[in-house]
Amino acid sequence: MKALVYGGPGQRSWTDVPDPSLKDPEDAVVRVEAVTICGSDLHILKGDLPEVQPGRVLGHEAVGTVLEVGSAVRDIKVGQRVLVSCISSCGQCRYCREGRYGQCLGGGGWILGHTIDGTQAEMVRVPFADRSLHVLPDDVTNEAALLLADILPTAYEVGVLAGKVSPGDVVLIVGAGPVGLAALTTARLFSPSRIVVVDPEPTRREEALRLGADAAVAPDADVRAELGYWTEGLGADVAIEAVGIASTFEMCADLVRPGGRIANVGVHGAPVTLHLERLWTRDVTITTGLVDTSTTSLLLRLMSDGKLDASPLITHRFCLDEMETAYDVFADPATSHALKVALTRDEQMPFA
Amino acid sequence: MKALVYGGPGQRSWTDVPDPSLKDPEDAVVRVEAVTICGSDLHILKGDLPEVQPGRVLGHEAVGTVLEVGSAVRDIKVGQRVLVSCISSCGQCRYCREGRYGQCLGGGGWILGHTIDGTQAEMVRVPFADRSLHVLPDDVTNEAALLLADILPTAYEVGVLAGKVSPGDVVLIVGAGPVGLAALTTARLFSPSRIVVVDPEPTRREEALRLGADAAVAPDADVRAELGYWTEGLGADVAIEAVGIASTFEMCADLVRPGGRIANVGVHGAPVTLHLERLWTRDVTITTGLVDTSTTSLLLRLMSDGKLDASPLITHRFCLDEMETAYDVFADPATSHALKVALTRDEQMPFA
Amino acid sequence: MKALVYGGPGQRSWTDVPDPSLKDPEDAVVRVEAVTICGSDLHILKGDLPEVQPGRVLGHEAVGTVLEVGSAVRDIKVGQRVLVSCISSCGQCRYCREGRYGQCLGGGGWILGHTIDGTQAEMVRVPFADRSLHVLPDDVTNEAALLLADILPTAYEVGVLAGKVSPGDVVLIVGAGPVGLAALTTARLFSPSRIVVVDPEPTRREEALRLGADAAVAPDADVRAELGYWTEGLGADVAIEAVGIASTFEMCADLVRPGGRIANVGVHGAPVTLHLERLWTRDVTITTGLVDTSTTSLLLRLMSDGKLDASPLITHRFCLDEMETAYDVFADPATSHALKVALTRDEQMPFA
Amino acid sequence: MKALVYGGPGQRSWTDVPDPSLKDPEDAVVRVEAVTICGSDLHILKGDLPEVQPGRVLGHEAVGTVLEVGSAVRDIKVGQRVLVSCISSCGQCRYCREGRYGQCLGGGGWILGHTIDGTQAEMVRVPFADRSLHVLPDDVTNEAALLLADILPTAYEVGVLAGKVSPGDVVLIVGAGPVGLAALTTARLFSPSRIVVVDPEPTRREEALRLGADAAVAPDADVRAELGYWTEGLGADVAIEAVGIASTFEMCADLVRPGGRIANVGVHGAPVTLHLERLWTRDVTITTGLVDTSTTSLLLRLMSDGKLDASPLITHRFCLDEMETAYDVFADPATSHALKVALTRDEQMPFA
Repeated sequence: MKALVYGGPGQRSWTDVPDPSLKDPEDAVVRVEAVTICGSDLHILKGDLPEVQPGRVLGHEAVGTVLEVGSAVRDIKVGQRVLVSCISSCGQCRYCREGRYGQCLGGGGWILGHTIDGTQAEMVRVPFADRSLHVLPDDVTNEAALLLADILPTAYEVGVLAGKVSPGDVVLIVGAGPVGLAALTTARLFSPSRIVVVDPEPTRREEALRLGADAAVAPDADVRAELGYWTEGLGADVAIEAVGIASTFEMCADLVRPGGRIANVGVHGAPVTLHLERLWTRDVTITTGLVDTSTTSLLLRLMSDGKLDASPLITHRFCLDEMETAYDVFADPATSHALKVALTRDEQMPFA
Repeated sequence: MKALVYGGPGQRSWTDVPDPSLKDPEDAVVRVEAVTICGSDLHILKGDLPEVQPGRVLGHEAVGTVLEVGSAVRDIKVGQRVLVSCISSCGQCRYCREGRYGQCLGGGGWILGHTIDGTQAEMVRVPFADRSLHVLPDDVTNEAALLLADILPTAYEVGVLAGKVSPGDVVLIVGAGPVGLAALTTARLFSPSRIVVVDPEPTRREEALRLGADAAVAPDADVRAELGYWTEGLGADVAIEAVGIASTFEMCADLVRPGGRIANVGVHGAPVTLHLERLWTRDVTITTGLVDTSTTSLLLRLMSDGKLDASPLITHRFCLDEMETAYDVFADPATSHALKVALTRDEQMPFA
Repeated sequence: MKALVYGGPGQRSWTDVPDPSLKDPEDAVVRVEAVTICGSDLHILKGDLPEVQPGRVLGHEAVGTVLEVGSAVRDIKVGQRVLVSCISSCGQCRYCREGRYGQCLGGGGWILGHTIDGTQAEMVRVPFADRSLHVLPDDVTNEAALLLADILPTAYEVGVLAGKVSPGDVVLIVGAGPVGLAALTTARLFSPSRIVVVDPEPTRREEALRLGADAAVAPDADVRAELGYWTEGLGADVAIEAVGIASTFEMCADLVRPGGRIANVGVHGAPVTLHLERLWTRDVTITTGLVDTSTTSLLLRLMSDGKLDASPLITHRFCLDEMETAYDVFADPATSHALKVALTRDEQMPFA
Repeated sequence: MKALVYGGPGQRSWTDVPDPSLKDPEDAVVRVEAVTICGSDLHILKGDLPEVQPGRVLGHEAVGTVLEVGSAVRDIKVGQRVLVSCISSCGQCRYCREGRYGQCLGGGGWILGHTIDGTQAEMVRVPFADRSLHVLPDDVTNEAALLLADILPTAYEVGVLAGKVSPGDVVLIVGAGPVGLAALTTARLFSPSRIVVVDPEPTRREEALRLGADAAVAPDADVRAELGYWTEGLGADVAIEAVGIASTFEMCADLVRPGGRIANVGVHGAPVTLHLERLWTRDVTITTGLVDTSTTSLLLRLMSDGKLDASPLITHRFCLDEMETAYDVFADPATSHALKVALTRDEQMPFA
């Protein structure tokens, strides 16, 4: 089959690889119907994640059809249309038992396109199939479901839930890339009083406003004032960091009110300075986290019932064979204004 | 001044009483600009609350203008437009310190129109003014604010928060009177996946649908089926009782899923049967409560920021002098289809 | 092998049955080293649980040695000394994913000695072995571990955690049988300010005092006064019902303070009266529940580290072949003063 | 009267100042019976808190007798024996309403010995008397109560509660000074499985062991190994920072397990480095905070009921006139091994 293979820093190709097959009784093999590219794939290509070996098929988000299941798979059936989640779960370690699948000690966690071959391919082997795949109802499209593989649960769990966004809150979101906008979309599930988004790119600010932000400003604006009357100048109830650099984290720490929460979602490559000499008295809570996908079913239910719509986050569409073009577009959002790209299997492909 | 005076069971009159005046350094006297009638006022008139003495001015919900404040009032100022909350708070007892103002042991709690004279009058004395009045911003109208005096915080605190309504939940609300509909409106702040309302009155079911219910059915419908696909027939995540009789409570207990929550908001006059022989293994949580109005500021913020609109709950409007007619209309919803009535001061009254 | 076989209401015998064997790839077969009898076994013998079929081997608590494991068992190994938990877990249904194993929809929950053959035998087949067995460290004895199979997690999860016992609380425990005393022992983990135990039996009250109760009184005492100075006569912060009849539940409802919690642990065979006409304003929370054994690992850790000792709850010891005598003693606590009985395999048995 | 007056960096004297008197209707004047010195008093003397003006009477912890109360004081009465809490509360601002008195916006918070004259004196004026004083029961001594003024609620709220110490947890406490040892004492209220204390001073480590630590080691020990078997090398469930320098904070961040909590209690004078490049995926929660004293009543109840004993923390005793000597002893713990010092009024003083 064809797959997007990592060849070491800076190198990738859509090329032939052997078809995947069952290796463990809990595995499934899934035919990829739709797949997307994640910012962390770009990090891998930059060489930022040295644990990823050359030869690895990338990708950890997909929608597909189950082709084959192992003997110990109980719930997932051949032929089902499924979401392939970015996180797998052994189901038995201390972390899996408390729903922290992202921290799985038993061979799960983020493995697809990371420590085993991933979803940017015509087929993918998925370990722990019963706990890594979610059967999709008919009323959720492939494209909508794609966003449930990573970006929506990441933004919801690591941003919105960890930050304890609550009705009436004033929420600051720093960064209006795909994850920041997903945080905006899912924060709205809790009816905050006001959401202020900060991003240097005008087109991303416009998108934030279209998705329901109450204000969207550049980083050099008077952000504290934008937080509005009800904060009394004290700062945001919740600040969500969705960029991953020191200055954006420190903006969050600076603009959160006493008693507020900072939820870090951004992928950081370097340390940040924490001003405990100012923060030690201020009752601030800072959280970090990898997505667990423990809320995927819930978000799927909301989507199916028409209460969650993140479809505007998909800005560009390709067929699978255009994988390399899709990477080019996704990697250059300043030019392309891409948020998320969707690649779908060509129905005419001889593969079926 | 004129006031609605309780004369014992079945007796009320809009009649002359002495003007109120400051009795304690923490009191304020407020001129009533708008006032409403509560279901509990009807309970008083039926004689269900024997602690209410004949001669008492009824009413515990109002919007007004501060006329006078005592020497120990710190934040409230003469001339401010304020919400008169149904709950007062001493601010010092163990319950007030934990925000349970409804259980105040220091002379607060529900006192207005109950143990002291209330708001259905041209003026009202309000004890613990700093903690019983809320200054209103200009962008919230008198009518909208009236609903913050009791009905919205009651439904939100005792129904929605006690029931822990969460995104994706399936919520059952039994009773589509004013409080049930306020529960519907405030439950939506948490983006449940589906809200099913049960009420025998077709007009109330229609109103529930207009306010965003996903289904509104009569009590003899197959309510369990209405809860939808995602509940797998197990029942609702949250059941809110907003009637106050045994059969509606038992409907909630019957239709909540294992692990679900039953939040009782209804005013009960008789015991109910709790089927512990069925429920003891089912991980059910049942809550009761009097409103604390601890969320009034938050609901006010949401209203001011355009994120909460309960205005359809006010169905009839009168001037203060029409108090007795307003009672007639409110007490006969089967005929009048009244939900909440608003009475406002006649601007031409010589009083000003 | 020998096993305690239920023969229909009132009938039981320690008799020969076929040895168990693996039926599913996730099964284990365990040789029973120590086993105990539960109050619910007596309920079965009374015919209260008609779902239990004649011919069923009873028992859902044991310590044993793993003899054989199925092909899909990943963590449990032959030869390990393990706790057999009263609750099994499929690990995949919505309830198992949130740690509510007692409500398992996938074939787990309380099955041993209930819907499949149980632990009062020389050997037992345990489904979902990886999630139903807990490997025991050397520093926890068989007898101590036996209490972790049901009674300690039940009291802790359904009583103490559901009741949210917190430091400084005044806790009322109604019933000083094995579960009530286990609730006492585990409530102390949270350092309540005062624990008052109510039981009609003087020997059980003495045992409660030995286990750390601050007071232990008969039901006709002035229990409210016993709750002490700090409650100001308002009642207990938490009331744990550990009997299972209407009058004890109603005692809890009567003696809990406004804002307090009632945690029902008792097994009820009939409805109770809930005085909502008094409770509706009192901010009371009532919980029910079946144990999930989600805290078994934690309690095991506390026991291993010497921070939890429930050994006084085992009052009588037998060898396996004395099973019928053990039942007689356990079923007549008024005479025997039995709390929990331990039956251990005779080392000389030819079986090994 | 005599008082300890701050004269600018490095300067203090026990000298004559005017007697305090009521300035506000909510004030009380209290005769100091016992008082102590806090590490933050030493910070003031170093000049680290420039907001403290020369001429200020220091001290924010005391036990005393009420001499006089203002006209708006409702609950506190002349002659009562009271605890003077380090935190005052306006009772009305948004923070006071949610129990975050340390963040009071209405003139309270930490004011005594900071922005107004404090307790290291023969008498002290206490604003917001009803919410700053706690009436003491006879069974709690002055010395025991002194520890409730600051150190115990600080350690409990900012360390133990913010860190969510729970039964079975493995807790790391870095720093065995008075606050670290108070964290140890109050952490034990939640029955952790194991508490490991880190401090370079052997005498402080010995004291930690006497107070119930399971291990007490020097910073250069293999602390991770000391956390014990149950952590599987992953790190502590909760790490409490009780020093206030970068290296101890970073030790906490390094030794907390994925999913764990870091509660900062230490007073920091400089920024720290937060290794988000390692922590971003690890589900870590970091909290900071000033004490609210919202748990003072609860800790008092535990002390009164014999469930909390922190008396070993008081190592040295003086009379009030020995204030300067007490400062010398407290400021040199390396020599004196002092933890907390208690100064009590000389009964023979002509003052009474």
